[in-house]
Amino acid sequence: MGRKMSGAQAVTDQVKPKDVVDELVEFTRKDMEAVNEMLLARVGSRVEMVPEIASYLIDAGGKRLRPMLTIAAAQLFTPQNSHHINYAAAVEFMHTATLLHDDVVDESSKRRGKLAARMVWGNAASVLVGDFLLGQAFMMMVETRDVDALGVLSQAAAIIAEGEVFQLSKANDLSTQVDEYFAVIKAKTAALFEAATEVGAMAGGATEAQRKALKSFGAELGIAFQIVDDVLDYGGASGTIGKNVGDDLREGKMTLPILHALQNASESDRDFIKTNLGDPEASAETVSKVVEILQSTNALADALARAQQHAEHAKAHLKEFAHLPGGRILIDVADYCVERAY
Amino acid sequence: MGRKMSGAQAVTDQVKPKDVVDELVEFTRKDMEAVNEMLLARVGSRVEMVPEIASYLIDAGGKRLRPMLTIAAAQLFTPQNSHHINYAAAVEFMHTATLLHDDVVDESSKRRGKLAARMVWGNAASVLVGDFLLGQAFMMMVETRDVDALGVLSQAAAIIAEGEVFQLSKANDLSTQVDEYFAVIKAKTAALFEAATEVGAMAGGATEAQRKALKSFGAELGIAFQIVDDVLDYGGASGTIGKNVGDDLREGKMTLPILHALQNASESDRDFIKTNLGDPEASAETVSKVVEILQSTNALADALARAQQHAEHAKAHLKEFAHLPGGRILIDVADYCVERAY
Repeated sequence: MGRKMSGAQAVTDQVKPKDVVDELVEFTRKDMEAVNEMLLARVGSRVEMVPEIASYLIDAGGKRLRPMLTIAAAQLFTPQNSHHINYAAAVEFMHTATLLHDDVVDESSKRRGKLAARMVWGNAASVLVGDFLLGQAFMMMVETRDVDALGVLSQAAAIIAEGEVFQLSKANDLSTQVDEYFAVIKAKTAALFEAATEVGAMAGGATEAQRKALKSFGAELGIAFQIVDDVLDYGGASGTIGKNVGDDLREGKMTLPILHALQNASESDRDFIKTNLGDPEASAETVSKVVEILQSTNALADALARAQQHAEHAKAHLKEFAHLPGGRILIDVADYCVERAY
Repeated sequence: MGRKMSGAQAVTDQVKPKDVVDELVEFTRKDMEAVNEMLLARVGSRVEMVPEIASYLIDAGGKRLRPMLTIAAAQLFTPQNSHHINYAAAVEFMHTATLLHDDVVDESSKRRGKLAARMVWGNAASVLVGDFLLGQAFMMMVETRDVDALGVLSQAAAIIAEGEVFQLSKANDLSTQVDEYFAVIKAKTAALFEAATEVGAMAGGATEAQRKALKSFGAELGIAFQIVDDVLDYGGASGTIGKNVGDDLREGKMTLPILHALQNASESDRDFIKTNLGDPEASAETVSKVVEILQSTNALADALARAQQHAEHAKAHLKEFAHLPGGRILIDVADYCVERAY
C-alpha cells in the first residue's frame, strides 16, 4: 500500500489553488480511495439497518477531513505498510459514531443539510449503529497490531465522550468560564484531530519528536476548527443568518461568542441572551437579535482572532515540514480552517 | 497479582452450597477486589456527572457475573501477571455501557429495581457516559499490550452492537424465525460471555485448545443465560407475575416463548398475542393472559428445556477442568443459570 507521490499530487509554492480542501483531497486521493473501500467493506452487515444508516451518514457530504489529515500526516514520511489506511478509516468511523450519538444527545433534526439519521430510523438505531461503528473502528486498529497507536486512539475515544458529557453538564450554565469552554472543545473536538495526525505520523515512521509535532499540530488545528464552527453557528464573521444558524443558542451551548458577550454586553443585552439561551423554540428574530449583540460586542471577531492564534500555533509545529508538498498543504489547511468563517 | 487459591476458596464435590453464585463470588473474591478497585479508579473524571452515573449503575446490585467468569477462567490456569484483572474490568465496563445504551434504546424506566439512569440524568448523559466507559474499557485492554485479547474484545463490542440493531429491526416482526432469535441472542448476549471466558483463559496462559474450550463454554452459557432471562420476563417456569414481568411484551421483543406460542397456540390466542405485542401500555391483566397462553402451549417449559441443552453443551466443554475447584464452580454456574428460572 506504500506509494510514491505522483507529479499531479505535488504542489508548488507558486500555484496555490483557491480551495485548500481540494488540494488536500488531491494530495490524499490515492490513499483515500483505499480508506473509502475499507469504510464500505466494514459497514457491511447481515443486519440491513447497519449499512443503511452508516452509508446514509458516510455518503452525506462529509468532507472526511479527519482521515485526510491522518493520510497527509503519514505521507510526510514514508509509510512502509497500510497501517495509515486502517487508522484513517478508524478515525472516520469514530467521527461518524460521534455524529450519530451527538444527534441523539442534541435532539438534532438535521445533519449536513439532510434529516438526521435519528429522524429517519429513530434514536435507538442511531445509538446502536454508532456503537457498531466504534467496535469496527477498534477492530481496524487491532488489525495493525500496533498497541501504541491503539492506545492513542482508545484514549481519544474516552476523552471525546468525557468532553461531550462535560459540555452537556455545562449547557445553560451561565457561570461557565472561558477555560471550561476550552476544556470542552479540546476534549470533544481537538482530541480526535490530535489523535488523527499523531497516528498518521506513527504509521508513517516519524521520530518521537516528529510524532509530537504532528500531534500538537492536530490539537491546535482542532481547537481552531471548533472555535470557527462555533462562530459559524452565529453566521460567521459577518453574522449572516442562514439555515441552522442559532442551533447552539437553542441548545444552550456555552460557546466562546456567547461567553464573550455575557462578559461585555450591556446588562439588557446580557439579559436578552440569558432569557433565550437554551430555548429550543427561539425564533429567527431572536437569533438575529443575539447575533447583533455578538457583533456589537465584537464577540465573533474576538473568537476568530483566538482561532487564528491556535491556527498559528498549529502552523508553527509544522515548520520543519514546510518545504514538503504535504507540509505546505497542512499549513494551508490551518489557515483555511479560520478563513472559512469569512 | 498472580495468587494461589486459599483453602477457604476450594470447593469439594461433597459440599455444594445452595447458592452457586456465592461460591463463585468466594472463589474470585481476591481478584474481584482488584477489579472493583480498577473500576472505581477508571470512572474517575473531572466531569462530575461521569462517576455519578457510572457508580449509580455499577453499585446498583449487579452481580458482576461476567467479570467473575473472566477471573474464574483465568484461575483455571496460572496467571503470570494482572492482565485478567484488566480484562475483567473491561468486560464489566463494556457490559455497563451496553446497559446504559439499552435503557435508552428500550426507553426503560427501571433497571435492577432502581430508576434507570436515563430517568435520572436523561438520555443524553446515558449515551455519552456509555461511550466514555467503552473508551475506558479499551484503554484498560490496551494497557496489557496483548493484541490478541484486544482483538477478541473489540470484535465482541462490534458483534454486540450489531446484535442489538438486529433485535431492534425484528421488534414487532411477527415473521421472526427461531433461528433469527438465536442469531440475536448469540450476538447481543453470548458474545460478551464468550469473550469474557476466552480472554480469561488467554490471560491465564491456556493452550490453544483450552482457550477454545473456555470460549465455547462462555458462548453456550451466554445463550442459556439469555433464554432464561427471556423466560423470567414472563415470570419464569411457574409464570409467576411480579414486577417487570411483561416488559418484553410491551417492547415487542420476539423472544423464544413468544415465537413458540405463535406457532402452537390456537388462532384466537395467537391473535391476542399479536394484538398486544409491542403495546407499551399493555396492562397487567393482558400480561397475565399472555402468560396463560405461554403456559398452555408449554412455551416456557420448552424454552427452558432448550436453555438446559445449551447449559449441557457448556458443561461438556469444561470436562477436562471438572477436577479443579474452579472448573467445578463454572460447571455449577451453568446449571444455576437455568435453575434460577424455577
